[in-house]
Amino acid sequence: MTTPTLLVLDADPPPRLGRLTGRARIEHADAATLAGRLPRADVLLVWDVTSSAVREAWPGDGPRPRWVHTASAGVDHLMCPALTASATVVTNARGIFDQPVAEYVAALVLAMAKDLPRTLELQRERVWRHRETQRVAGTRAVVVGSGPVGRAIVRALKALGVTTALVGRTPRTGVHGPDDLDRLIARADWVIAAAPLTEQTRGMFDARRFGVMQPSARFVNVGRGQLVVTEALADALARRWIAGAALDVFASEPLPSGSPLWGLPGLVVSPHMSGDTVGRLDELAAQFVEFYTRWEAGRPLANVVDKRRGYVPGH
Amino acid sequence: MTTPTLLVLDADPPPRLGRLTGRARIEHADAATLAGRLPRADVLLVWDVTSSAVREAWPGDGPRPRWVHTASAGVDHLMCPALTASATVVTNARGIFDQPVAEYVAALVLAMAKDLPRTLELQRERVWRHRETQRVAGTRAVVVGSGPVGRAIVRALKALGVTTALVGRTPRTGVHGPDDLDRLIARADWVIAAAPLTEQTRGMFDARRFGVMQPSARFVNVGRGQLVVTEALADALARRWIAGAALDVFASEPLPSGSPLWGLPGLVVSPHMSGDTVGRLDELAAQFVEFYTRWEAGRPLANVVDKRRGYVPGH
Repeated sequence: MTTPTLLVLDADPPPRLGRLTGRARIEHADAATLAGRLPRADVLLVWDVTSSAVREAWPGDGPRPRWVHTASAGVDHLMCPALTASATVVTNARGIFDQPVAEYVAALVLAMAKDLPRTLELQRERVWRHRETQRVAGTRAVVVGSGPVGRAIVRALKALGVTTALVGRTPRTGVHGPDDLDRLIARADWVIAAAPLTEQTRGMFDARRFGVMQPSARFVNVGRGQLVVTEALADALARRWIAGAALDVFASEPLPSGSPLWGLPGLVVSPHMSGDTVGRLDELAAQFVEFYTRWEAGRPLANVVDKRRGYVPGH
Repeated sequence: MTTPTLLVLDADPPPRLGRLTGRARIEHADAATLAGRLPRADVLLVWDVTSSAVREAWPGDGPRPRWVHTASAGVDHLMCPALTASATVVTNARGIFDQPVAEYVAALVLAMAKDLPRTLELQRERVWRHRETQRVAGTRAVVVGSGPVGRAIVRALKALGVTTALVGRTPRTGVHGPDDLDRLIARADWVIAAAPLTEQTRGMFDARRFGVMQPSARFVNVGRGQLVVTEALADALARRWIAGAALDVFASEPLPSGSPLWGLPGLVVSPHMSGDTVGRLDELAAQFVEFYTRWEAGRPLANVVDKRRGYVPGH
């Protein structure tokens, strides 16, 4: 048996794959060289998860890897009709980001309840201005997205005494279906978007939905930028249909410095980092090595993405 | 029996005491009029908890109220040797602030772990700069102050997966004594000060203690400003003996606009608001009315302060 070729769509720093020495012929590619190197790869590791190079290169000529793994939870940056139609298996990094994203959402919820952004502004102005803040315990949150990240967010918010409701594509025990969404967000203090980007979720947070929310409600997006109609959110904040929002993801990343979102009152902007805790690169590389070991042995892979749906189904 | 005279050291907004109509002759005082009105009061309600007027007026001539209640957890703003030596009972608002302060500490811990102050700075500069942040779960916190506030902080941090140690004046089950403090803070990621101001706690966070902490440690004070030797903290931050700090309380409040603390890198300054959630004024007034009802009926009061120690002893 020949040594398989593992092609890595690289990012800086590269993955630590020392454990694969002798077990894979590792090649590297960037956006410019990916198309030329794809045909001789058995496996593709998408380490640069900010790139859409796979989606662009995939439809070209020649053989294609039998397996693609992305070091991300979302797969929207690589999926294309040709990849969906192919026999190639796609896996993702489900599991690595759950707890970090949940903590990040808890941080945003608490910071908004305690008016921390305003406190930091007043500190800069050297102004002592006492305010009353909100209790988080006893408030209500709706978490949209019933995958491991959404469920971890529910656990973190429950631990703070928040009453939570989880909304997913398919209603089941402990998970509401999309039909309940409007009723739930109409009485929520916190609406948290943690869904994958699919045809069903694209633009789901639009003017109508922000209109349904309470004026005291706050919105947090840690899923994908395209879940939100950005202009509708900006408008909802300007008209005070909702009290505030925090976005960690954007339709176009990095967010251009000219975007009006940077300066929108009541909006916290962060650079797609909710899941990115110290040490996660090594966890992502170790997860891939574990999956490679299964693949090598002909055992079933974990985290296999339903390519039509755009996420790993189940639970 | 004559109607008791209830003197209120007032603040804006005043307490809602409608339920005491006909049950108390309510008089009001401010710092200027307190000394003159104290001799004819049976009960003193210290509603302005930012004032040291009681401490100043108490040693004067004439009779003194039999009972003083303060709408605060700390009593350092009113205690003086003459009050300690008197037969007057002092009660506090223990219980009202526990959960709010615990949430506030959780908010600060998460905000520092997730680098939120820097994120807000970068947002103002319209700069997209991704960073790796810290996981909170698995970190270690030491909470100094084993009263209800300290215990609520422990519960909130435990709910986030933080390993906690509680330090109080007297070692007992679940509470370390002062002798363990240095050993505990030497390996803590978070050191939280939530102790009352007493002769034992004044200045306890000094240069030596900040020197014992890890360079990655962060310090939070929601107790009293005088627990900390301010210059030592400023120095510890400047020399990077510790990674950051958040102060909600100060030796002199409001913090003067000329104080160097406002601009200290790595320090979050907030205006003594950790316990002050919406609705707390009504809770404080209702708690006083409940205590008044006991007092009226000659039943024992709750939250009786040990005047020598400066806090309510026991669980």
